[in-house]
Amino acid sequence: MSKLTQNFTYGYYIVTALKKSDNLKTRENDYIAAGTVNWVSQVSFAPEIISVAVGQKSDLNETIDYSEHFTIHLLSKDHKEYVRKFGTKSNIEDGKINGVPFKKQNDQAIIEDTIGYLTCKVVKSLNMGDHTVYFGEVVNEEIHKDKEALCTMQLPSEYTKEKAEV
Amino acid sequence: MSKLTQNFTYGYYIVTALKKSDNLKTRENDYIAAGTVNWVSQVSFAPEIISVAVGQKSDLNETIDYSEHFTIHLLSKDHKEYVRKFGTKSNIEDGKINGVPFKKQNDQAIIEDTIGYLTCKVVKSLNMGDHTVYFGEVVNEEIHKDKEALCTMQLPSEYTKEKAEV
Repeated sequence: MSKLTQNFTYGYYIVTALKKSDNLKTRENDYIAAGTVNWVSQVSFAPEIISVAVGQKSDLNETIDYSEHFTIHLLSKDHKEYVRKFGTKSNIEDGKINGVPFKKQNDQAIIEDTIGYLTCKVVKSLNMGDHTVYFGEVVNEEIHKDKEALCTMQLPSEYTKEKAEV
Repeated sequence: MSKLTQNFTYGYYIVTALKKSDNLKTRENDYIAAGTVNWVSQVSFAPEIISVAVGQKSDLNETIDYSEHFTIHLLSKDHKEYVRKFGTKSNIEDGKINGVPFKKQNDQAIIEDTIGYLTCKVVKSLNMGDHTVYFGEVVNEEIHKDKEALCTMQLPSEYTKEKAEV
């Protein structure tokens, strides 16, 4: 495990994915997953493509595979508590993911209490070591708040640290 | 062009690549390229793999293709001037790249006045829109200084802004 990578800087993002239930009579059984992610990077201006690396054993990984779309929400300094809340397996209950309200819109799970979000259509995915890298072309954007983004400089990434100790 | 991506946070890195000259009698004609890069992300813990997105028309891109290796140097707050210096085509003269001293070591071009560096062996490359994404497995690491890394929160990325205005 490299020490230098511990000093790489990332933003904090919640990535969600939604796959509609095959049962058309009800939307109750839609597959929804969400997780805190640091390993996000833009990789192209035109078309605008974003990469995100997701643990291969996560439910988020499986749901992106089904959905072929994902939504990246950008967190601000006001959302530090979300980092931990979305650090575990997704729990969907009473219109909330991990206790945080969300809505279904354009077949995506949207968390409004964030700076904003980008919805991406998967154009390529690639297994790399213990993660899958999804490349998504931006198809929709909405900005809710004009706040400064949270980054690993302000809140060291637990994700990287925990794994480093394994 | 998405506005939200302007608020994604990245570190500042100088990526170098070196391809030895085919002429064994002299090392003067080694191919060397270097450039400031923001779009860097770890994508796997084990093996440790880093992704970096490089403009397809850059000399850095061509040299990584030849070399099949690249070295990522991490910049600190003391290295703000390097961001611009390495924002243009590489100029190699008198043992300096763009006016900054470097040394050749393990067939890599190393800039010592940085926090440190990682050398990666390319395990996969992928053209994505106007960039190429290189995935490199970490094969060597050296840390020179214990300094806080520079990030786009402290110094907004000119790269992203300039392109956004086109």
